[in-house]
Amino acid sequence: MSRHPEFISRLDGPVLVIGTGLLGTSLGLALSRAGVEVYLYDISPTSQLLAQDMGAGRLWNGDLPQPALVVVAAPPDVVGELVIGALEQFPEATVTDVASVKSQIMKQVFAHPQAARYVGSHPMAGRESTGPTAADADLFVGRAWVLVKHPCTNPQAALQVLTLAQDVGAFVTELDAKTHDQAVALISHVPQLLSSILAGCLVNAPSTSLNLAGGGLRDMTRIASSDPRLWTAITTANAPAVVKVLKEIVASCTELIDGLAKAPVEPPTGVAQSAVHSVMLKGNQGVARIPGKHGEAAVHTAELGVLVPDAPGELGRLFNEVGAAGINIEDLRIEHSVGQRVGLAWLTVHQTKAVELSEYLESRNWQVIPA
Amino acid sequence: MSRHPEFISRLDGPVLVIGTGLLGTSLGLALSRAGVEVYLYDISPTSQLLAQDMGAGRLWNGDLPQPALVVVAAPPDVVGELVIGALEQFPEATVTDVASVKSQIMKQVFAHPQAARYVGSHPMAGRESTGPTAADADLFVGRAWVLVKHPCTNPQAALQVLTLAQDVGAFVTELDAKTHDQAVALISHVPQLLSSILAGCLVNAPSTSLNLAGGGLRDMTRIASSDPRLWTAITTANAPAVVKVLKEIVASCTELIDGLAKAPVEPPTGVAQSAVHSVMLKGNQGVARIPGKHGEAAVHTAELGVLVPDAPGELGRLFNEVGAAGINIEDLRIEHSVGQRVGLAWLTVHQTKAVELSEYLESRNWQVIPA
Repeated sequence: MSRHPEFISRLDGPVLVIGTGLLGTSLGLALSRAGVEVYLYDISPTSQLLAQDMGAGRLWNGDLPQPALVVVAAPPDVVGELVIGALEQFPEATVTDVASVKSQIMKQVFAHPQAARYVGSHPMAGRESTGPTAADADLFVGRAWVLVKHPCTNPQAALQVLTLAQDVGAFVTELDAKTHDQAVALISHVPQLLSSILAGCLVNAPSTSLNLAGGGLRDMTRIASSDPRLWTAITTANAPAVVKVLKEIVASCTELIDGLAKAPVEPPTGVAQSAVHSVMLKGNQGVARIPGKHGEAAVHTAELGVLVPDAPGELGRLFNEVGAAGINIEDLRIEHSVGQRVGLAWLTVHQTKAVELSEYLESRNWQVIPA
Repeated sequence: MSRHPEFISRLDGPVLVIGTGLLGTSLGLALSRAGVEVYLYDISPTSQLLAQDMGAGRLWNGDLPQPALVVVAAPPDVVGELVIGALEQFPEATVTDVASVKSQIMKQVFAHPQAARYVGSHPMAGRESTGPTAADADLFVGRAWVLVKHPCTNPQAALQVLTLAQDVGAFVTELDAKTHDQAVALISHVPQLLSSILAGCLVNAPSTSLNLAGGGLRDMTRIASSDPRLWTAITTANAPAVVKVLKEIVASCTELIDGLAKAPVEPPTGVAQSAVHSVMLKGNQGVARIPGKHGEAAVHTAELGVLVPDAPGELGRLFNEVGAAGINIEDLRIEHSVGQRVGLAWLTVHQTKAVELSEYLESRNWQVIPA
């Protein structure tokens, strides 16, 4: 835990973490590591003891010095009242929360006379597992942390939360509550629901169909294994924004259905073709807008497929050779085939390096397939 | 090209490939490598010359010996007439095609008096790039190849196409045309359209929203960059089956919208919660049905995240260390953060090996994050 001398906190007082689930405990671990005094509180005695045992901080009691900063890391439906409670109980402290939906909480808190000391946070650092045992001090490193202020936010309070985020390794983006909620509906909540809906269609499919599943279906359904309880809380708290995007999806599906219904069983007509074509084209444009690595414009990359026999150590051997080639690998994904003991590793490299890597790997007897 | 002594064809005569795009040229390359005499024909003189130059075979002319097998590798809307043309022109030959939709073609061909010599094929070996220059002799290795017979199919013809598929390294699954088309609508065509529809919603989103995009959205939109022309042809040819699945998606979305609309802006009601919860739960069940690696029951795996600084060679260095650890890596994906020069590599290993790998990597000063 002492491997990170770069994480020395610039916070100027103790931090109280209310709620010792995955996020609260991870925050406690990260702050404790950075030398901050952390107090822990959870409505569940087991959970708060577990967090303390993991090294996330010490249990809160009224005899301790007042916290300079309170972080509410509780389920979304109770965050509003806990934030208000904290503002009242600690009249000097800055209060923030880490819930993934912000408008609802902001509306509750904004009416409070002490609202100036509240700043909303949303660290984009979820994970499938939950609870204090899944916590990690590095959970926030390299992740976005959205800061949500309101018109009366005290600048000093905002600075404190900014410092908190940076101290745990996150990088800060500032958005208003409504913009934030619309953004996460589009880039997180609806993708989650669509993945689950698509995966749900597989429940009654014959297994012969599922045996033909390729990389596309796997990509599209990967997040469908996420926690139903957590996502129920998140998406219902952001219902208006989620509904808006879902309606857009339904409208596009319906246009497609109407178009495709005009395709006779024999050769397709122009109507069906143009319905699909415009959906595909718009999809091309949309996916091109997702920022590449590090938010830079997407660099020109090339993909190489490498056949990997499923003998133990073969993927390790490939990693060895790729490492030895000294070429920067931008991305990597593994594609498995059903019924065959061989996999395909797809390596993404800058396009100027593709030929070099391909020749290098072929010289080492790997079977390389250009994409 | 002589690296694969295992691929020696058991086909007993020349093969004529009609259509020298990605699939036709790849097939020509694979068969030529296996010692088969391959003839090439394409309506585009440039395309067939290019395929010949790449070593996929020699241009067809009437003076050559009759082919024993004809493979029609043309766009779906012309496959039916080309198959019938081939059955008539080569009265001794077996004829197959490689189109990704089968019912429509089967219906056209079945009425023909020579239909017994026709067997449908669908090698599951697409790729984003198209045309003969994207071809590769290894394109079919480890991929599924669906064989579609009809009640009058000559068993000898079916055996010939089975041999063809196996000779190029694919593994064969047999389905009837309708089952095949329903399967690919569910596992391939609708996932493609949904990915494009979701990506299409990003076209007008503010770039601040897109900057928050994480692994989930990236997974869900990866295939949205596919070729509009190709997918228009495929999905319109399979319109009835695609529409059926799309309607199921719309029904689920509509149920969700109705449920979520009942969630008031303040704490959510049971109706909205149960709508989302049942979608999430069904998604959990559906994704669990996708066969794991090699079609075996999913093994119990664990995921480890490793922080990778974006310095050149760092990912290579990780590969080196993972290779040296001698632990079989089941899967690997890279997650990038916007605005931070660090990435997360997620390694999937058998759960009994997770602690060992984690400790090994930490001993080499990697920052490891358990999932």
